[in-house]
This record gives sequence, structure tokens and C-alpha cells, in this order.
Amino acid sequence: MAKVKVGVAGYGVIGQRLADGVALQRDMELVGVADVAPTLSVRALKEKGMPYAFYAAAPDKLSELAAIHIPVSGTLEDLVGKVDVMLDATSAGVGAKNKELYAKHGTKGIFQGGEKNSVADVFFHGYANYEKGLGAQFLKLTSCNTTGLIRAVDCLDRGVGVEKVAITIIRRVADPGDYHRGLTNALQIDHAPSHQALDLMTIMPHVDATGILVHTPVTHGHIITVVASTKKAVSKESALELFAAHPRIRIVRIDEGFLGNASLFRYARDLGNPRGDMYEIALWEDSIVMSGKDIMFAINVPQEAVVIPENMDAVRACMKMQSDRIEATDTTNKYLGIGKWKALE
Amino acid sequence: MAKVKVGVAGYGVIGQRLADGVALQRDMELVGVADVAPTLSVRALKEKGMPYAFYAAAPDKLSELAAIHIPVSGTLEDLVGKVDVMLDATSAGVGAKNKELYAKHGTKGIFQGGEKNSVADVFFHGYANYEKGLGAQFLKLTSCNTTGLIRAVDCLDRGVGVEKVAITIIRRVADPGDYHRGLTNALQIDHAPSHQALDLMTIMPHVDATGILVHTPVTHGHIITVVASTKKAVSKESALELFAAHPRIRIVRIDEGFLGNASLFRYARDLGNPRGDMYEIALWEDSIVMSGKDIMFAINVPQEAVVIPENMDAVRACMKMQSDRIEATDTTNKYLGIGKWKALE
Amino acid sequence: MAKVKVGVAGYGVIGQRLADGVALQRDMELVGVADVAPTLSVRALKEKGMPYAFYAAAPDKLSELAAIHIPVSGTLEDLVGKVDVMLDATSAGVGAKNKELYAKHGTKGIFQGGEKNSVADVFFHGYANYEKGLGAQFLKLTSCNTTGLIRAVDCLDRGVGVEKVAITIIRRVADPGDYHRGLTNALQIDHAPSHQALDLMTIMPHVDATGILVHTPVTHGHIITVVASTKKAVSKESALELFAAHPRIRIVRIDEGFLGNASLFRYARDLGNPRGDMYEIALWEDSIVMSGKDIMFAINVPQEAVVIPENMDAVRACMKMQSDRIEATDTTNKYLGIGKWKALE
Amino acid sequence: MAKVKVGVAGYGVIGQRLADGVALQRDMELVGVADVAPTLSVRALKEKGMPYAFYAAAPDKLSELAAIHIPVSGTLEDLVGKVDVMLDATSAGVGAKNKELYAKHGTKGIFQGGEKNSVADVFFHGYANYEKGLGAQFLKLTSCNTTGLIRAVDCLDRGVGVEKVAITIIRRVADPGDYHRGLTNALQIDHAPSHQALDLMTIMPHVDATGILVHTPVTHGHIITVVASTKKAVSKESALELFAAHPRIRIVRIDEGFLGNASLFRYARDLGNPRGDMYEIALWEDSIVMSGKDIMFAINVPQEAVVIPENMDAVRACMKMQSDRIEATDTTNKYLGIGKWKALE
Repeated sequence: MAKVKVGVAGYGVIGQRLADGVALQRDMELVGVADVAPTLSVRALKEKGMPYAFYAAAPDKLSELAAIHIPVSGTLEDLVGKVDVMLDATSAGVGAKNKELYAKHGTKGIFQGGEKNSVADVFFHGYANYEKGLGAQFLKLTSCNTTGLIRAVDCLDRGVGVEKVAITIIRRVADPGDYHRGLTNALQIDHAPSHQALDLMTIMPHVDATGILVHTPVTHGHIITVVASTKKAVSKESALELFAAHPRIRIVRIDEGFLGNASLFRYARDLGNPRGDMYEIALWEDSIVMSGKDIMFAINVPQEAVVIPENMDAVRACMKMQSDRIEATDTTNKYLGIGKWKALE
Repeated sequence: MAKVKVGVAGYGVIGQRLADGVALQRDMELVGVADVAPTLSVRALKEKGMPYAFYAAAPDKLSELAAIHIPVSGTLEDLVGKVDVMLDATSAGVGAKNKELYAKHGTKGIFQGGEKNSVADVFFHGYANYEKGLGAQFLKLTSCNTTGLIRAVDCLDRGVGVEKVAITIIRRVADPGDYHRGLTNALQIDHAPSHQALDLMTIMPHVDATGILVHTPVTHGHIITVVASTKKAVSKESALELFAAHPRIRIVRIDEGFLGNASLFRYARDLGNPRGDMYEIALWEDSIVMSGKDIMFAINVPQEAVVIPENMDAVRACMKMQSDRIEATDTTNKYLGIGKWKALE
Repeated sequence: MAKVKVGVAGYGVIGQRLADGVALQRDMELVGVADVAPTLSVRALKEKGMPYAFYAAAPDKLSELAAIHIPVSGTLEDLVGKVDVMLDATSAGVGAKNKELYAKHGTKGIFQGGEKNSVADVFFHGYANYEKGLGAQFLKLTSCNTTGLIRAVDCLDRGVGVEKVAITIIRRVADPGDYHRGLTNALQIDHAPSHQALDLMTIMPHVDATGILVHTPVTHGHIITVVASTKKAVSKESALELFAAHPRIRIVRIDEGFLGNASLFRYARDLGNPRGDMYEIALWEDSIVMSGKDIMFAINVPQEAVVIPENMDAVRACMKMQSDRIEATDTTNKYLGIGKWKALE
Repeated sequence: MAKVKVGVAGYGVIGQRLADGVALQRDMELVGVADVAPTLSVRALKEKGMPYAFYAAAPDKLSELAAIHIPVSGTLEDLVGKVDVMLDATSAGVGAKNKELYAKHGTKGIFQGGEKNSVADVFFHGYANYEKGLGAQFLKLTSCNTTGLIRAVDCLDRGVGVEKVAITIIRRVADPGDYHRGLTNALQIDHAPSHQALDLMTIMPHVDATGILVHTPVTHGHIITVVASTKKAVSKESALELFAAHPRIRIVRIDEGFLGNASLFRYARDLGNPRGDMYEIALWEDSIVMSGKDIMFAINVPQEAVVIPENMDAVRACMKMQSDRIEATDTTNKYLGIGKWKALE
């Protein structure tokens, strides 16, 4: 079967990881990546010897790119014309504009959490509503926090039914290397309910969700606490069993040395994962407690890489590569190497 | 009526503020403060011209104190012998040792949250269980987080009844000026349930409490989110009304400029409060949301000063200065200037 | 003698402290302060009972101010018309616009470091070039880092002559309570030479100055290291003697507990200084080392309050209240309480 | 020629990178790594499928290791008996104890900067004093800051002669993932002169060095400013040329996007370097300024990986694999992939 041809627009924090993710999918072909300027990431691409073809998204920046000898394979539109699907990881707002280009060429488009919901026909999550994405032309993925959160809530929901969640998001405020945003010695609270709770309800309309988000001055991984009311009675042990069976959830323990989000970043670096990335969320076994009949627990969401698997799922859905949710996500997982570690336990 | 004579052991972050608090109570007399060594706080006391008499807690450090010309009024035991009550704010573990000295002199002792519960006869909170402290010889106060949390939960409980709370504590990891502890670019999770939830149940045994605590690398104010199940139905508006009526709770809004814990520290500094301290917890109006029939909200706990009012209440209780909870806390509030701002609204 | 009438435009971090500083000068009268909107600082002014008259700088924001019941004494222009000198601490760029208003009313204007040099006739420092400010209509103060740095360099220069300095500025990136700027887990370097080195040469043209600035994610106090080449030979001891004699320099030692910038903030809070402010720079005795014939040392610059004394000096200069540099700065120091602590040593 | 057999004691931040570095040297063989307990790094080794044989350094922890199914190839002493050289990256103080084991087996030992100088016969730096290490039994490497600093100073010294340096070290306080140490919203100053300046003089005794060190709450890369007095006149351009020719120094510019230490960490991650490591120091072209005849500049030192190349050089020296400094360092560089990027410019 011919490989699905994929392009990536925006070669930043997410775009780079999408490109790497697509390159690992044996049933997809990464045709190229597009960006506007010689950013650090583009310079690194060049220093690595241009493993991916580069397309210029802004014709007026061509001289800047030429000045540092980045080989340019064409314009963004050239790239769009060559592929079946564009993964759009441009800055918020640019995707909506790029969409016109995708529509013009009949190319499917998959947008990230920063874009408005109206950019897409379907708001998508690989595990929670894969079927809705089948054959869609424009999909929008959930943001990093929501993607990780839904993994855990959907997992619990399929096991014992979830009626209601109240979440507290302890958000990392910037990525490593970010200088355009930051917070210094301060916690910052957002108007409640947080958009992540509202987004969860868009994907899982049968769940009542609310939550409060607090920004914290760190760069590695959000931590979310979840208080969930379930339909069937659940114990700490049975919940743990459900979570442990999910391919994209790692169960960790404080006593093993996983003291917080920075431990998980360190562990991913020590694993030799490119950039120290981790696709899985982590769920602390030591955090699971009962609140009456409700269950409470904490997860870690590695913000830079967590959405990559669900983006691969989205390509599978919109291109109808697999019609079944489990078949699709398992294929993504296999190519990304997710779950290999489960076999070691 | 003769003033109640009070001494303070440990002139650190809490001890200094206890001394200032006692000095403001017109029905108490601050006899003196005791510490072991010429710390920065003791040096500042000297530079201020020794407004409080200083007693040496460690005879072997007398030469160190003499070297910087700190006038010493006697030993810790001398101080204990002169007062009715000792407020003990020494490092965790020292209080248990000091207790023997207090017992020997028949002096009452009030310990802070860092000591073991066994050090005291009663685990005390001015609003939640004032009556239990009446006439007690040894009281232990709740820690800063628990003190602030109980203010809000007790307030809600007296209004509509609280059955259950699930809390997420976003803890500041160090105080400004701390070099002996700290966290850098990391969130750290504790084993659940957090001790604050357990402590709350000791004070309010009819409430089911659990929670997760995450340390964050900031120095100003904890933020706690609370999911509370109430006995009577409660709306956002009625809960707000209850909270707004509490003298030690400030209602704040993001749109006023209270963006997080650092805004509250700045506001207290701009108010001209000594050290930029604030006795009240803040509760964000914009954080209150319903989770089904449960209510969720976020509070800010200014860790350095929040326990001071409840310590004054404790003196009142153990010395039977007032037998009524409201009379006692109102007297504390009047002398500390708490609630004046309410009149301005 | 009639008091000099002073107004303050901009009631933010600097403006509040200027107002407090003027209020302490017994030969000045603070007529009022002006700002545009009900910021946290303006709300705090109201909660304190309006110790200073408030003037509205933006007529279109009057309804916002009225909504929170801030009593308004008039417009900015009304204030300008009532005073001899305006201390302008508005956001960078606004001062240049306000200057027209000051010129129209024949009111003198003193601008802060954020404005362009062209806004003023003289670039001013109380100790280094007081005489240049005598009778000037428009003065501009140096920024916080430069103000603190010049104190030390001018002090050394008057003692042994300074030919050359190479500085490294370890800059705090935001003030406590700032949410509009920040840095998270990153050091940021600026193009060299830093503007502080260039500014120093404008005030002290006989010194060759250069330097490198690195931003750090902290909120309390810059630290600057200085490598100075002197005309006369200098020893560690003789330099220390010079610095110790300067009224606006505190000599501190690590072994006393002054471990860094946060210790100094804590000490100022423990002193009971309003907002935990400190007017003096600190110079670490333990940091002074010889580099061949050059001397190297480190200072701490408390960024929020350090410029206040030199602003008071500027009022004295432009109003010719004192013609002598030492008489002027000594008067400022006396009213601000600077140097009292020296008597205690 | 038979490969030199190397073992690594201590599989932590440095030990892991030493193991990876040795594994890349085609003329060395990594026999195994030793550590005491199932740390996160050891768990990661297991999850990676045990690419390196693991030896247990503490017999009493064998059951802990067995509990998580880490295959153990023997004891530390077994490893010592099999190799020509041990790279010791254990915690400070342990190396001195391990030395007895190395001596007993006639195995050479290379210690890291944390050990006392007395542990070794020679204090070593690959570029500055390679010859001193030839055939030595026990070598000690300089610490990360000193290693990076000496690269730049030695480079300048060999070009134009260096008489004197005054350095300011802006030190990152912890590594990513460290929870046992940290600093929160504070800068911390050390007694001057810093040990790095003293260490530099041990390696380069003809240079007069002094300096001040300030700890900052970040995790990625130290920044050091250097003021250097040279024997021959040097211009900004000629210095830049010298630095640019050094294989282990990267010249970077702010305008390219290298805004600070976090940009370099991000760049190394984007390069796909394992763990986001970088062996080279970076030197900011935009930081080079003249201070009279002296030159001033700033470097970035990636603390986790910077010492790895010099450790490989140390193996070469003590085993007399190459007798020439340039031949040895070039061989190390070739196998580590250092300098490939230079060819791209």
C-alpha cells in the first residue's frame, strides 16, 4: 500500500516532534517541513545535515535563509501540493490562514490546540473519539494538558464510567529555551473554569468537567490532579489496574525516584529519547486516594511531546488508514516505540 | 485587668511575627523573645534599637551574641519564669524539649505546626475549635496551609455543612531569604494524602478530607484548590457571601489585578504592612465554580503571617481571656487591624 | 523657608517610593500623586486611607476610578500647576510626553532611567555630579543598576582615582508582583557593552567602562561584580575603609548570614522598613579580591528603592536647596534615616 | 592494537555521559559501569535493554537491585580487576576510598572535580597540560566550570599570552532532575576568590587568576565572564579568530537566537544529541568587548557534558595512547563528533 504523504507546517517545539513522529511511522512518508525563518530549530536541522526537506513558508525571508545556506526545496504551497495531509503546528492564528491553502489544494489539515475550534470540523482525541475523525478534512487536536488528561479520564470512563471530574492544573509556564514568555517567583491563576475542562466536555460530552488552572515557573511537565466521580464503584487498586493497562500511561512511584515532573524529564533523557522527550503521561501510584466514593490522582503531562501520538492517530483517522480505534492507536504506538517498556516489567 | 504576660521562643520567620502580634494585643504584654544565635533577624532587632528584650536560648552562644553587642536580658529559662504563656516557634523538635522547661515552671506552651501532635493536649484552630483550647496547658497550632484551609472550610461548614473535601495544595517551597532549602525548575509531589488533609480531620472530625500536595519553586504564598461537598445545596453566590463575611478572608478578583500569590505579596507591601505581611487568606471570586452539586474554589495562604491571628486566639483560649469563640477572634482581629478594610468596601 | 512643593507622576514601583521619600523630607511638601488607573498600588493607597492626594492622569479612566471610590483631587495638569518639581516615574516614553506639560507650566521635571537621555538637560547622580544639576529645569536620573554602581565607583574614584572598570551585571529580571515580564529557568545575555557601563561614562567621563549583563530569574536585587583599575595603589583594606565610610553603602559579610540578594531583602523586611525596602547598596567584604593591581568586588543593588535617595538629591539640586554635594546628600540621608545604623557599629 | 579497557564507577549525571563517551571511542572498550542502587539512571539503563554491563558497588544493595530485575555482572572490584582504567564519577569523597581498590589492582584511576586534589598525582586538562598526565596512575580532572574556562583561557594564552584573568561565574545551581539541592528566587555569593580561579592557577601557574562566583536558580549551563590581560595586544577580531579555531569552542551570536544558556540547551536537544548534551562551550561573539588593553567576553559551560572530552583525553594521557596533545584531543574529538559542525560553516 502506498504510504500516506505528510507535510509539517511550523518547525518549532511541536513541529519538529511531529516531523520526527511521522518519520517513524512506516506507513507514512514525511515529504518535508516548512517554516518562515532561520530559527534555532532550523539551524539545528541544517547542522544535522538536512534529514528533512525544508520549504520556505515566507517568500520574503528567503534571503535570510539563503544567508545561512539552508537548502530550500520550495514554498509552503509547493509542499501542500505534494502531500495528502498537512500537520499544522504554526503559531496560533496562522493555521486558520493556512487552512485556505490546504482547502485550495484539497489537502487535509490537522491543527493543534492553539487554534480556534472553528478551524476544524472535528475536535479530536485518538483514544476518546477516534471514530469522529474518520475521513474528516480538517481536524483539531486537543492541547497538551487536555490530551494527557483525556487519556486518563477516558481510560477510567471506559472501565467504570465517569460522571464528573474536577481538575487542578499545575501548569508549566514555558518550554526549555523559551525567552518570549516566562514567570519569575510567582504562581498565576486563570479565570475558572479552565479551558481544558471545557475542552474535555467537547470531546467527552457525557462528563461534567470543571477546573482551576495555576501557572508555575517551571519548564518540564504539567501536573494535573483529578477528582473523578465514577458510575461504578472503584477502588484504588482497580483504578490502578485500568491505568496500568493503558499503553500511553506510565505508572510511577515516588519511592522509585520519580519525585516530580523534573524526574520524568531526567528519566526520558537518561533513556536516550531524542530531546529527552516522552510520549506517555505518568500517573503516580502514590497519589491515588479515595475521596468518599470519588477517586483522586495526579498525572504528569510532558508538554512538548505528549500530543505527538494523537497527531499520528489523527492522520490515521482522516486518511482512513485504520477504521478501528485500537488498531489505529496500537499502530501509532508500535512505530513510536510506546509500550515496549511495559514488556520489561 | 492585668495583662497576660507572653514570651516568644525562636525569633525566626514565625517568632518575629508572633512577637509583633503580641505587642499589638492591648490585653497582653510581650515580656521578651529568645533565640540561640546572632541570626539576621536578631541583628535586625538590634539595628531597630531592641524594641523587645532578648533572652539567650543557648548559654554557649553568649559570646557570639556579645561579640556583636546584642544586649541580653537573661536565659530562656529566665524568660519562661516571667511569663504566663510561651509561644514556641523554634525549629521542629526543639519545642518538645522546651516543653519540659515550660512544665517545670507551670508556664503554658503554644507550639507551631512543625512539632509533633503529641507535644500538646489540644490541636487548635481559633475559628474551628476554640472551645477545646479553653484552659489547656499545651496547645499546638495547625501549620500555615492547614490554618488557612480550615478558615475557608470551617466558614463553609458553619453555613451549609461540609461533608467532604478534596484539596490540591500548590505549595511555595521556601520563604524569601531561605538558603537552606529550595527547588529549582521542578515541581515535587508528596505521598498522598497530604498531612494537611489529615490535620483538617483532626480539627474537624466530621469532615472527610483528602488531598495531594505539590511543591513549587516560589516563595510567596501557597495556593490551595478545594472541591467541597456540602450538606445543603450551595450556589456560587451564596458561598461567596459566606466567605465575604469572614473577617480573615479577603475576596479578590483577577480583574482587579490579583493575578496570583505574588500580587497579594505586592499588595501587602504597598499597604505598608510590616514585612509585607498579610494575616488574611485571599479567596478568588473568579475561581469559584460548581462541580455538579459540589463547589470548587481557590485560596491564597500567605505562609509567613497567616498563623499569627490563630496564635493570638490560642493565648486567649488557654488563658481563658474570652470564653466565646467570636468574642475572642474579634478581639484578636481588632488589635491586629484585621477587617478594617472591609469597612471601606 | 517655604517647603519645596513636589508632585509624583506614576504611582507604580518607583512612584510610590518617591512619594514616601518626599513625604519624609521635612523641607519638601508632597502635594500629590498621579496615575491613570485603579492599579493594585492605587487600591492600596485607598485602603490605607488616602495619605496622599490622588490626581487622575487619564481623564477617560475617571469612571473606572470612581467605580472603586478613589477620591480624585484633580487632573495631572492640576497637580503640575501646583508644584515646583514633578518627579516623573511613568512608564518609559510617557515622561517625554509629560515634559511638554511641565514646560507649559514652568515646572521642573525629574525623569527616571527608563526615559531617553534626550528628555533632560542633565544626566544626574547625587554623589557623582551633583553640581551639574544645580538649577537645571529637566534632570534624568540613572537607572537602578547604574545608580548603585556609580555610588561604589565614585566612592573609590574620590579616594584613589579610577581609570577603568569592567563590570558584570547579574540582573534580577522582574520585581516581586510582576506578571508582565519574567524569565523561567534561563539566563539571558545582552549585547555588550551593557548600557550601564555606557551610562557610567556619561556621568564619569574620565573613567573607561565596559561590561556584560546577564538576566537571571529572580526578583530581589541585582548583583554586580566590578574589576577596577585605580590610579593610586589600593589594598583590600584601604578600599574597604573607603566603602565603609560612604553613607549609602552597607558593608556585609557572608558569615553574618548575608548569603545573597535574598538575605538583604529579608533583612530589610526584618528591619521593619516599609515594603522591605533598602536605600543602601550592600558591598560584600568577603568578595573583595586583588587582581594584580586591580581590585575586584561585588555589590547588591536593591532595585526598587535604590534610586530614591538620588531622586531626593535631584530635587535639592534643581531647586538649589543646597549648593554643596555633601550638604545635599547628607540632608537627604538624614530625612530618609540612612546611616543611622552606622552609629550602632 | 588492543583497545584500552575502561570501567566507570558511579552511573549518575557524569558517569552516564562518561560511559557513553567511552563507548564512542573506537580505541577503547567500555567493560562496564558500577553503581550502588537502583537510581532512575540505573532503571533507565535497564529499560534501554542493558547496553552496558552493570556491576554492583554496594553488596548490601544487591537485593534492591534484584527486586527490580537489574542483571548484575559482578561487584565493583570485579570490574576494577578487568580494566586498565577506571573513570570515577562517584559522589565526592567516595573516589578517595575507591582509590585503594584501584591501587590494589594496579588499575589507573581518573577522578572528577569534586574529589580533593590530594586524591591524584596530577590535576589535568586535555588542552592545557596534557603532557603532565602521560603515564600517570591517578589523575584528577578539573570541575565543569574550570574545564570550560581553561579551554578559553588556554586558547587565548597560546595565541597572545595571558597574564591575568578576573572571572565572574554565574553558576547554575542544580542539574535538571535534581531534588536534593536547589535555590528558589535567590542569588547566592561565595567567598572570593572562587575555587575555579585557584584551580586555573594550579593548571596554568603562569596566570594570575581571581574571581567571584554567584549561584543562580537555573539548571542549564553556567555563564562565565572573563576579563583577561594579555601579553601581546589583542583586538576583538583577533581574539575571535583564536576562539573560532578551537575545536571545543562554538562561537554563537545573540542575533542567531542564542539568547542565553537555555538557548544552547534547546539547540543541543534539537540537534538530537543524546540527553540534549553539548560537549563544546559556547562563546558569544556579541559579548566580546575591550576594557582598555584587556579583553572581556562571556562563555556558556554546559555543566553535564563539558568534562567528557577532557576525561577521554585523560585516558589517552595516562595510558600513553597518544603522546601529543593535539593528536590526543583530535582523536577524542573525532570519535565524539566534535567539530563536524565547523565544516558546515
